[in-house]
Amino acid sequence: MVPHPIRILGIDPGLRRTGWGVIETIGNRLVYVGCGQVVPDEKVSLAERLAFLHHGLAAIVREYAPDEAAVEETFVNNNPMSTLKLGQARGIAMLVPAQAGIPVAEYKPNLVKKTVVGAGHAEKQQIGAMIAVLLPKAGTIGADAADALAIAITHAHHRVSAALKLAVGAR
Amino acid sequence: MVPHPIRILGIDPGLRRTGWGVIETIGNRLVYVGCGQVVPDEKVSLAERLAFLHHGLAAIVREYAPDEAAVEETFVNNNPMSTLKLGQARGIAMLVPAQAGIPVAEYKPNLVKKTVVGAGHAEKQQIGAMIAVLLPKAGTIGADAADALAIAITHAHHRVSAALKLAVGAR
Repeated sequence: MVPHPIRILGIDPGLRRTGWGVIETIGNRLVYVGCGQVVPDEKVSLAERLAFLHHGLAAIVREYAPDEAAVEETFVNNNPMSTLKLGQARGIAMLVPAQAGIPVAEYKPNLVKKTVVGAGHAEKQQIGAMIAVLLPKAGTIGADAADALAIAITHAHHRVSAALKLAVGAR
Repeated sequence: MVPHPIRILGIDPGLRRTGWGVIETIGNRLVYVGCGQVVPDEKVSLAERLAFLHHGLAAIVREYAPDEAAVEETFVNNNPMSTLKLGQARGIAMLVPAQAGIPVAEYKPNLVKKTVVGAGHAEKQQIGAMIAVLLPKAGTIGADAADALAIAITHAHHRVSAALKLAVGAR
């Protein structure tokens, strides 16, 4: 029996730059589908940047029609204003798939690093290097797109246990 | 000459409860139009709560057709996780009017208190009491709806200087 392919959209949210990556998981095989970045104009108002982000991500959801989505549970740093900004972008990143009826999973940065590189404290460059190994067809891509693909891969590895958690109503 | 009425939507964003309030400013007169709260089901996933919030606020924007919107520049407290959650709700609160082409202004909590109560360190109850004085037709309302009306009133008082700031491209 050929396993049914599951298409996953990973999103690395950010107000300046939001990375996205789409893969398919077929049994234990990963297939690269697409990736990129949504970059709002920094000169427009915050509200307009959020609308641009929504518009860009909604176009990707329409074009790639993912079955499931995953967003990084953004690292909370020591700058509350940065955390607030990140939260705003992250709200949009979670909203867009939810509006299309697509379930959205969340993963902590350490789990993403551990899944893709094998160590929870991996450097950003190591993620890019591992994406090049795991998804060679992605070619040369930006760091945010690589992070988004890493989040999608993390979901591919953990989606069964995540589904069980969802089924019992955990948040 | 009768001044043109400007309809303002104020939003007090929160993941558990988002307050909204609509007023009209006609010359130096304030007229109460409507207010309420959008309360997502706490049992569903974060992404679904954000979608519910978007849906609720979008219905209000359609029903009341405001000319301008204002959102509180949320107080950043010492709990980064709370700030991240607030940021997510705030992202939706700013997105919805922007998607309808409505300009969105931001005001710091202290300015809202100073404008409505006259002191930057006013208590939450004082805001409710002043809303009852300034907009008696609002009747008995929840604290989040009162805060949202206070934000709308703040915008009514400061919108001309805010417009000038926007015109010169300040963010």
